[in-house]
Amino acid sequence: MNREQALAIVREQLTEHRYLHTVGVMETAINLAAKYGADTKKAELAAIFHDYAKFRPKEELREIILKEGMPSELLEYNSELWHAPVGAFLTEKEAGINDKEVLDAIRYHTSGRPGMALLEKIIYLADYIEPGRHFPGVDEVRDLAETNLDKALSKAVQNTIMFLMKKGQPVFPASFQTYNDLVMTKED
Amino acid sequence: MNREQALAIVREQLTEHRYLHTVGVMETAINLAAKYGADTKKAELAAIFHDYAKFRPKEELREIILKEGMPSELLEYNSELWHAPVGAFLTEKEAGINDKEVLDAIRYHTSGRPGMALLEKIIYLADYIEPGRHFPGVDEVRDLAETNLDKALSKAVQNTIMFLMKKGQPVFPASFQTYNDLVMTKED
Repeated sequence: MNREQALAIVREQLTEHRYLHTVGVMETAINLAAKYGADTKKAELAAIFHDYAKFRPKEELREIILKEGMPSELLEYNSELWHAPVGAFLTEKEAGINDKEVLDAIRYHTSGRPGMALLEKIIYLADYIEPGRHFPGVDEVRDLAETNLDKALSKAVQNTIMFLMKKGQPVFPASFQTYNDLVMTKED
Repeated sequence: MNREQALAIVREQLTEHRYLHTVGVMETAINLAAKYGADTKKAELAAIFHDYAKFRPKEELREIILKEGMPSELLEYNSELWHAPVGAFLTEKEAGINDKEVLDAIRYHTSGRPGMALLEKIIYLADYIEPGRHFPGVDEVRDLAETNLDKALSKAVQNTIMFLMKKGQPVFPASFQTYNDLVMTKED
C-alpha cells in the first residue's frame, strides 16, 4: 500500500482536524525514523493509521476490547486509551496491514509500554510533537527529539502522566511502567 | 508498653532531629485517630516506631529484605523505601510488638499500598503533615486532613509521586497503585 492509498483510507475515518494531525505525525515519524535508523516506510504506515479507530463509537471500542480478548483493565481507565489497541486490530482487519511492528506501534501509541521497540517510540513521540501540537512543554520535547530519542520520549511520558495527576485523574498502569522503564534504563 | 517506654526505645535508634519528628508524628497520628475513629493507642505505637529502622546501615536493610523474603523489587528502587518494611520487622523482633495493624502501618508508611487500612492511612498522613514538616503543598494537605482523610492522603501521595517525577526519579509501583486506588475509589 502506498502513501496515497493509505491516506485515502484513513481520511474517511477522521475529521479534517484529525486528518491534518495525522499528516503531521506522518512527516514527523518519517524524519525521526531516518534520524534514528528505523524503517521509514513502516513509520509512515504506522503514523498514517495510528488514529484509525479514534472516531469509532465508544460502545464499538468497548465491544471489540472484550470480544478480542484485549486487557479488560483498559475499560477501567480513560476511554481515550481505547482507540489505540482497537486501531491496531481494525487496521489489520479492515485495511489488511499485518506487519507486527507497525501494528504494535499503533497499539501502544497512547499508553506506551515497558520495553518499547524503536518504531513504537517513534510513533508515540511523533504523535506528541507533530507541528500541530501546542501545549506547555512540547517545545522542550521537540528539542530533545533532535538529539536523544529516549530522553525526548521519557519527557513526553512524564509530562503526560503529570498532566493527568495534576487533574487527579487515574493513570493507566502501563504508562507508569513505561515511565519507570525509561528512567531506570537511561544511560546517564 | 506505655508511651514513655516506647519513646525511650526508639530514641536510642534515632538522631535528635528524627526523634522530634517522631514525636510530631505521634501527636498528629493520635489526633487523626481520634478524629477518624481509629484506635488511638495503636496510632500512638505505630507512629513512635514508624522510623525505627531509619538509621540502620543500608547493607543491613538490604540483607534483611533478602533474608526475610520481603519483595526484592524494593532493592531496585530508592533506598529511602527500605526502612519501612524492615522497621516493621525489627519492631516486632527487637521491641516485641506483634499487633498486625500496627506493624502494617509501619510497613506501608513510605510506599503506601492499594486498599490501605485506616491506621495505615493515618500514619502515612501524619508522617507527611506533622508540624515539623515544611515543604510546598504541605499546608494544603494539612487543611484537607481536617475534614477528609482520603482526600488528604490522595493529595499527599500525588505530591510525593510528582516530586519524584519532576526529578526524573523512578517511582515505586505500589505508590502508583496507591494513587490510582485512591482516585478511582473516591466518592465525589
